[in-house]
Amino acid sequence: MERKNLKEKLLLYVITDPHLSLGRSHQEVAERALRGGATAVQLRDKTLNTRELIEVGKELRTITRRLNALFIINDRVDVAMAVEADGVHLGKEDMPVKLCRRLLGQSLLIGFSAKGVEEARAGERNGADYLGSGPVFQTTTKVQKVLPLGTDGLADICSAVNIPVLGVGGIGISEAPRVIHAGAAGVAVVSAVTSAPCPEDACRDFLQVLRP
Amino acid sequence: MERKNLKEKLLLYVITDPHLSLGRSHQEVAERALRGGATAVQLRDKTLNTRELIEVGKELRTITRRLNALFIINDRVDVAMAVEADGVHLGKEDMPVKLCRRLLGQSLLIGFSAKGVEEARAGERNGADYLGSGPVFQTTTKVQKVLPLGTDGLADICSAVNIPVLGVGGIGISEAPRVIHAGAAGVAVVSAVTSAPCPEDACRDFLQVLRP
Repeated sequence: MERKNLKEKLLLYVITDPHLSLGRSHQEVAERALRGGATAVQLRDKTLNTRELIEVGKELRTITRRLNALFIINDRVDVAMAVEADGVHLGKEDMPVKLCRRLLGQSLLIGFSAKGVEEARAGERNGADYLGSGPVFQTTTKVQKVLPLGTDGLADICSAVNIPVLGVGGIGISEAPRVIHAGAAGVAVVSAVTSAPCPEDACRDFLQVLRP
Repeated sequence: MERKNLKEKLLLYVITDPHLSLGRSHQEVAERALRGGATAVQLRDKTLNTRELIEVGKELRTITRRLNALFIINDRVDVAMAVEADGVHLGKEDMPVKLCRRLLGQSLLIGFSAKGVEEARAGERNGADYLGSGPVFQTTTKVQKVLPLGTDGLADICSAVNIPVLGVGGIGISEAPRVIHAGAAGVAVVSAVTSAPCPEDACRDFLQVLRP
């Protein structure tokens, strides 16, 4: 996996979620988001079995390769290997980053969800290539268990590590510039793109404020 | 992974299922089954997240290593790698056998669920090390979608392939000898051991008829 332009590839990172996609498939949402300029896609689906995840993953791999985007799999290291994704994104309920790095070597990127400075430093130390940090703002995508970081909390994380950080959670067009200003390499979005009537337009609008 | 004594290690293969274990943990059932002479343990749990599966898997790896038993993970190739299991067991909803073999090389055993002769031959051709075939008899563990193979159907599968075959599904003490007689290398059991008041005794009873 190419690491040198990773930061640029994290600018607009769309997490697909078929339950927040107005009935559209992972494939449709991903393709439309990429046509609108998204730079990365993460496949996240806890309802599919392994075979189905591999099938969807292979299709997303084809689409992301064709449209020159980063492709990341949530949680499932086996699926990431099977579909030749660029990387895997790990949270606290997934494989530990250190173990994952030992198993995979440098063959896949590893993203890690860090909710604060200590977790961020631990993620970097354990070998993560990038962090997803949040929720930056209130979000309706996940049941809220922690208080939002705010842009100050996000800025603290960005200053604490040398790897790129994605802001995640409750980020719409109007919030995106503040996330970048806090030092993030990009924004990770779910419903702002997947639930948009036109995912292409939603991504174009994001990019206008992300690349002003 | 040692393949030369695989057949012997499949003689009494216990699949742990905490929902059929009278409230006992995977670890307790596995340890007690192995003390009673079980030769293999498969960890199967669709309710745990990856982190939990790895934690339980590491404990079962320690127990199975100490008691010299085969240790197999259901479905999750990533978890099997993470806990250094001996192998992974794949069904139709899991990673395809051929893809798994390509990713893993010979580092892990691959078991495959084959419900008939054609599937069995395909499994062998694709690189499976052993097959689990059934249901041989009626079973209450899984919602029945197919008619039981019976011992004749199992015997057909055993004759059709050169890799060892486990009989699975509805096998109690009284059925076990007929399963071996049909040509199976061993029996795979769930509730007959996990739901037994004393898993040690249940395994001892099985072994008395399996090694007459």
